[in-house]
Amino acid sequence: MITALAGGVGAARLLRGLVRVVPPTEVTAVVNTADDMVYCGLHISPDIDTVTRTLAGRFNEVKGYGVADDTWTVLGTLGQMGGDTWFELGDQDLATHMFRSRRLEQGRTLSEITAELADIAGLATRLLPVTDDPLRTRVTLRTGQEVSFQEYFAKLRHAVPVSSIRFDGSDTAVAAPGVLEAVEDAELVVVCPSNPLLSIDPLLAVAGLRSTLEARRDRNVAVSPIVGGHAIKGPAGRLLDELGLERSAAGVAAYYAPWVGTLVIDDVDRDLAPKVEALGLRCVVTDTIMVDVDRSAALAGAVLRAGGYRGPHG
Amino acid sequence: MITALAGGVGAARLLRGLVRVVPPTEVTAVVNTADDMVYCGLHISPDIDTVTRTLAGRFNEVKGYGVADDTWTVLGTLGQMGGDTWFELGDQDLATHMFRSRRLEQGRTLSEITAELADIAGLATRLLPVTDDPLRTRVTLRTGQEVSFQEYFAKLRHAVPVSSIRFDGSDTAVAAPGVLEAVEDAELVVVCPSNPLLSIDPLLAVAGLRSTLEARRDRNVAVSPIVGGHAIKGPAGRLLDELGLERSAAGVAAYYAPWVGTLVIDDVDRDLAPKVEALGLRCVVTDTIMVDVDRSAALAGAVLRAGGYRGPHG
Repeated sequence: MITALAGGVGAARLLRGLVRVVPPTEVTAVVNTADDMVYCGLHISPDIDTVTRTLAGRFNEVKGYGVADDTWTVLGTLGQMGGDTWFELGDQDLATHMFRSRRLEQGRTLSEITAELADIAGLATRLLPVTDDPLRTRVTLRTGQEVSFQEYFAKLRHAVPVSSIRFDGSDTAVAAPGVLEAVEDAELVVVCPSNPLLSIDPLLAVAGLRSTLEARRDRNVAVSPIVGGHAIKGPAGRLLDELGLERSAAGVAAYYAPWVGTLVIDDVDRDLAPKVEALGLRCVVTDTIMVDVDRSAALAGAVLRAGGYRGPHG
Repeated sequence: MITALAGGVGAARLLRGLVRVVPPTEVTAVVNTADDMVYCGLHISPDIDTVTRTLAGRFNEVKGYGVADDTWTVLGTLGQMGGDTWFELGDQDLATHMFRSRRLEQGRTLSEITAELADIAGLATRLLPVTDDPLRTRVTLRTGQEVSFQEYFAKLRHAVPVSSIRFDGSDTAVAAPGVLEAVEDAELVVVCPSNPLLSIDPLLAVAGLRSTLEARRDRNVAVSPIVGGHAIKGPAGRLLDELGLERSAAGVAAYYAPWVGTLVIDDVDRDLAPKVEALGLRCVVTDTIMVDVDRSAALAGAVLRAGGYRGPHG
């Protein structure tokens, strides 16, 4: 069994490769929910949707969110009415959010609904939201204003300086059923190339996750989301800077050092390998740019080898 | 000024006629909100939407709810997913509910949003939700089970016997801004041909409404929603029976007698006029079947004459 800690797009790409090189049923993804939001009343789980759709081959790669070949009937009408359209919801996307919101109204948990949606999408991989409890990223801007993740990410297009990040609800959120066991029992934990501060940190903020990961540090392998000093996508690089961390694969190594034993970094960062190793992590250098599913699978293979994974039958 | 007490379809039809015979700016409609619901997270106000769309000429007369010529993109996808589709939401309909839900999230009141939506629809008539506070119809079935209005009305298709009706929130709900004044100051209050038990009763359940109406009883004119012993639409007839009231225009007269001075009944019920008058109401007999906008306007004219309305410059 392999358990992956996952945020959005970067994680989804690695997972897509992972299920090419091991049976999908061997993979569990523990997915960030701190980006979840209620918008127009609808419960939206951006990372869960990104992972589900990517694995189903239905992710809108052009936009970087939503469903491939979606239509915009409702959003068009909303725009004509003068309604809020900064968060672009396609028609099929909306159906997913309505499905999830309705099931929540009926008393189902986010875990149960996530499993249903994965099943509807035809996935054999197990997807677990990190928690069924409310957990919400709150970003304090340099101006002093505190905003939600989506306001920061989508509305402000992460173009404003940040002074701190916290996860509202982390003092009471408990891990969803199966999450701690999936981490504890995995032959290998794979930390996907997701934003350390916005996607991986909220997972660690859920009770029991960090200590469980620390206790098995040597069997945890992370892929650096920072390549050549920049994030492949999103504000990870900028945030590392703004929060006083080194904006490099070595900065990621320093940040993950207490609970990650091996860091996979990109070929362009090979000069940083000694620095990563000096921080007490093994370092593996390979091509980490997942431009297509073959490259995702190649990276996944490298990650498995880096972690000494011997396959489902050991 | 004319103030109309309004439920859904029957009220909307009379209002459509009313704004033909008096300037739309002279009319205020106080609309039932006890059918409002949160469904898939969306705040839906069925009666407000029915009135708004009918006055805008965009009501789906064929289905009896929703927007004319709507499309079903999202609902189709939701159905394919195995989601709940008993409440049929079209794409344009959805946009309205998203608009309303978003504005509520932003802290606007239902009154403010209703005015915005009326403005977007190009209406000059003032539409007021009876309250900005939660007010929800709860229907107790003969089986003892208590269900929401929409479960009773749409899901069970009002085909099950009812033992009682209550309005959750009525102990704390206060009238929305302008409602009590609109009733108090109106030259004429028109009680539209809506369900007395499900559409008009919740208005009376809001603090101050019933006493304000009682204090001006002689200038309140109601149109009977029961014609020939049956409701034109919906479960009004059945409910009158089930709750031990007479299922006739005279039953409506008895029910409204404490606060309505004049009842307009249909030609087919002319034999009931003496009975209505014996209950202490004036009775006007006319054609009340609003098959088209001309007949709506004719009925509206009869209602105004019945109430002695002398026009805006009276």
